[in-house]
Formats: sequence, structure tokens, C-alpha cells
Amino acid sequence: MTVAECAAALRAADDVLLLTHARPDGDTLGSAAALCAALRRLGKRAALYPNPEITESYRALTAPYLGDGTETFTVSVDVAGETLFPRGFQGAVALAIDHHPSNTGFAAQTLLCAEKASCGEIVMEVIETLCGDLTAEEANLLYAAVSTDCGCFCYANTTAETLRAAAHLLDCGADNHRLNKLLFRACRLSRLKLEGMIFSDLRSRHDGKINIAVVTQEMMARAGATEDDCDDLASLAGKVAGNVVAITVRELAPGRSRASVRTDGSVDANAVCARFGGGGHKMASGCTAALAPEALAEQICAAVEEQMT
Amino acid sequence: MTVAECAAALRAADDVLLLTHARPDGDTLGSAAALCAALRRLGKRAALYPNPEITESYRALTAPYLGDGTETFTVSVDVAGETLFPRGFQGAVALAIDHHPSNTGFAAQTLLCAEKASCGEIVMEVIETLCGDLTAEEANLLYAAVSTDCGCFCYANTTAETLRAAAHLLDCGADNHRLNKLLFRACRLSRLKLEGMIFSDLRSRHDGKINIAVVTQEMMARAGATEDDCDDLASLAGKVAGNVVAITVRELAPGRSRASVRTDGSVDANAVCARFGGGGHKMASGCTAALAPEALAEQICAAVEEQMT
Repeated sequence: MTVAECAAALRAADDVLLLTHARPDGDTLGSAAALCAALRRLGKRAALYPNPEITESYRALTAPYLGDGTETFTVSVDVAGETLFPRGFQGAVALAIDHHPSNTGFAAQTLLCAEKASCGEIVMEVIETLCGDLTAEEANLLYAAVSTDCGCFCYANTTAETLRAAAHLLDCGADNHRLNKLLFRACRLSRLKLEGMIFSDLRSRHDGKINIAVVTQEMMARAGATEDDCDDLASLAGKVAGNVVAITVRELAPGRSRASVRTDGSVDANAVCARFGGGGHKMASGCTAALAPEALAEQICAAVEEQMT
Repeated sequence: MTVAECAAALRAADDVLLLTHARPDGDTLGSAAALCAALRRLGKRAALYPNPEITESYRALTAPYLGDGTETFTVSVDVAGETLFPRGFQGAVALAIDHHPSNTGFAAQTLLCAEKASCGEIVMEVIETLCGDLTAEEANLLYAAVSTDCGCFCYANTTAETLRAAAHLLDCGADNHRLNKLLFRACRLSRLKLEGMIFSDLRSRHDGKINIAVVTQEMMARAGATEDDCDDLASLAGKVAGNVVAITVRELAPGRSRASVRTDGSVDANAVCARFGGGGHKMASGCTAALAPEALAEQICAAVEEQMT
């Protein structure tokens, strides 16, 4: 569907439940909260599903929008597939707004703009079509969405359109100074310790082109780290000069791990992760497997090397 | 003078020497190199003064534009005052292009736009007025200028106009993916490992207000780090949220260490370091002592705590 059709569907709806994805990031939360604010501005009942995995950085931003999950018209924001939902919403989503090319088409209707760096840029257009403008609060929430999904305009997905969307959000009142400090600068000691352990143990392969970070539960415990300290760990290994593919594997439980693969586009991360039942974008994908982190890291590294040779 | 007047002055000139400032950053180098490229495109002789302080990150970008310093029409780019020049150019600058409000007006003519986040944004307008367009090469050089002066759009000086200027540079062919990697992301593996060890071993005292980093020779060896990996280590401990005083102690030789103390101004770093025979400024000072790093760290921490109570 188009942005205009999406806006029309939302205009016709009420009692809207906004779903964010598992391990929610700034894009899913900021986009959903902004849309929630806009729907309330139109006099509708709307709330975010109370995602239990919201981390410290996003708690204050999203608090005013969290509901009890009883709303009836279900809209997912930045969610690629039903496995990323809380239980009970499979087959129940009326409308999906997403930018993941791997979106499985699980919703009754889908607004998919796969060329956008962030879902926030799509929701910005939806709100402006729906309401005619953006409030400063909505602009702040969308700035959080857009800026975090492109690493404060530093990641490879940042386009001229991303930068113009951010400029427009600043014009609408987004306080980038405050948000950049909150989202990108100050760091909890436990996060710094965890990052420190990850970097000091980083493995570099294939002449430094593949860099592997492993995050075990033992490291989490030693750093005193919680879920709040785990935002965007997947970007760390990519900091190595000459990196082409960054593989980050996190131990979820003994014998169960999740991998994130980020590439410069010359290696298809989506294809690599699909072999392990996962997916995402060409330059950023993920998968979960019943393997210890070291084993999953090795298998993914081998799959990446196949593509590189 | 206006952008149009500046462009007219450059159009009338030839044999142009472009001056960059001492300890040159991306803005002075990128802006000067872009202007140099544009002037050459118009058939003029033009070159950058061979600033001896150009660092690794900017060597490849600026190499094609460095001359021997013999050109005669002298233009300074992003230089606030004559003390920032190499010797011999005092009173000799025909034209200054700058964004520093503190510009001393040392040049015969000055294009000053103090509201711009970077000099690159001004030079972008000058080149477009001068040539009618921007080449991809010029856009790359200007992207380096704009993005480094605002910390990749993260610093407080980033405005909607900065973001739009960057978007325009991308439209003109700037490769932000490659440049962001070069300027902001890429880090030698040895540096990342050393940082990792420092962070994983960081000590936080006094409710997180004092943060202590210790760098031993054993850590340097384990990270495979050299002096090239030790730029600005003193800033790392200050990343902890709530930090007031960051103490960094580096082992120089067995039983000999150097400390750096950075504060937010509420503690006098100069007074602390003076007790160990060192000194500096109120917010940043250093000292060297015949002590093992752990011992020096403890003594400095005690001196800081005396001031805090």
C-alpha cells in the first residue's frame, strides 16, 4: 500500500495497538511512539504494546505511550516477521509499517519502503499525511528512530534522504543536542566494561576483513551488564580498520546463541543468515541457533568466507 | 564580503596558495582541498601550503593538492587568527574564508559566516557560485570538512542546515560510506584491543564521579599497541555517565608513571597535579611520578577526593 493508503487506513481506525519488535531499538520504539502520539492527537485511543525488553535509553522516551495491550486494531512498526512479536499476535496484525526487505507479509495490509534507512522516515511521511504536520514531541521521537538506525548518520545506510529527513525533524523542533547526548554519548560503566571485554577479545580473520565479537553470559556477569547495556553491540566489531564483515554472536542461554552479521554490501548478510533460519537486510541480518556462541561464530564465518572467495 | 564577492575575487585571481591552520583538522584541510580542486578546474594554478602537521587520516585526501608554498595569491581557509599560520604569512593573506566568530580580521578581505557549523558549508557555496556545480571529488572533500567539524552530525553545533548541506554533498557524489569509515569508524585492531582492556578494567569511585583508567606496559604488549595507538587515551575514562573526574595513569617504565587528570571544572586538576610536581589547566592537567601506576592512581584519587568532600 502507499503512504496515503496507510494514512487512510489509520484515519478509519480506532483503539490502535502498536507493536514493536523483540529486543526493541530506537527505530521501532521511536517510530511507534511517534505514530501513537499522532493518533492520540486525532482523538483516537492508541498505545504501544508494553514490550518487556525496552532498555534504559528508551524508557523515558516511550513511557507516556505504553498501554496494557488491550487495544484492538493492531499495527506493527519496524517488524519484519511474526517471530519478532510477543506471543498471541500471529495472524492478528491489521497493518504493518516496515522498511525491511525481508518483511514476510504477515499483516493484512503492509506499507513497505525497503529503500529507507529507517522506519522513522516512513512514519514521518505517514504522520504528515495523516495530520498535516509534526509536533516537536513527534519530531523528537522520530529523530530518535532515524538517528539510531543509522548510527547518528555514520552507518552505510545513511542517504541524502536520511539526512534531509533529519533536517526536517530539526525544523519541526527535534532537540538533536539532547537526544544525541542521551543516545550516543554518555555510557553506563557496565556498558563500557562489556564493550571493553568485547574489544579486548575481538578476533580478526581473512586479513582483517572479517571481525568476530563474542558476548557470553559470563562476560555479561563479569561486566555487571544487563539488557540495558546491549543496544547495538552488533556495530562494535565493524570498527576495525579494513573490516568488511562484522559478526557478533551473543550467548542467549547455554547452547543457544544469536548472531548478527553486518557487511559493507559486498557480502550478502541476508543470504548468510538465511542458512541459519534468519534474515534481514543485505548489509545487516541476524539469526538464532541452538549452538554455543563460539560454534555459531565459526559456522557463520565459514558461510561468509564462502561468499568472499 | 558576500559569497558572490568572494567568488568574484577568486575568479579574478590566479596562482593561489591555500593556507590551513596549525594542527589541521578535516574542516580546514577538506575545505582548502575542495577549493583548490575547483580553482584548478577553472584552469588556475592552485595548491595547499604543505602543512607539516597533516595526520594519517587526511594524508590520502589532501595529497593531490599539496604544493611547495610558492604560489602568490594567499587564501586562508578555516583559520581564525595569524598565530595559527606557519611563519611568514603574517600580513600577507589576501582573502580569508572562515566560520570562527573569533576571526581577527587579519586578511585584506574576509568572508565570515559565523553561524555555519563548518567552513566546508561556506566553501560549498563559494565553489557553486564560482563554477556552477560541484564535482564528486569536491563533494568528497567538503563532506570530510563538514562531517568532521560536527562529529558526524552528533555534536551540538549540528543544525538542520548542516544536515541539508551534507545531503546536497551526497547528491553531488560524496561517498559518505567510505569517508565515515575512514574518518569516524575505522580503528586499528591494536587500538581497539587496548581501549577494550582499559574499559574492561575501569575503576569507578565516589558514586561513579571519579573514574580511573590504568594503562600498563603489559597491556600495551598484550594489545600489540604502539605509541600510534595512544592518542587521547586520557579522554576514555570520562565517557562514563555521571563522570566528574577522569584519572588516567600510564606506566612509562617499571616504577615510573604519568597521570592525566580531566575534570568538569568543579575539581581543580591543576592543584591535584601540582602536588605531584605537575600541572596544566583547571580542567586538564598531568604529572609524572616515580611510582607504579596503581600507586600513583590511588594517590591522585585520594587528592581528588579531598577536594570533593
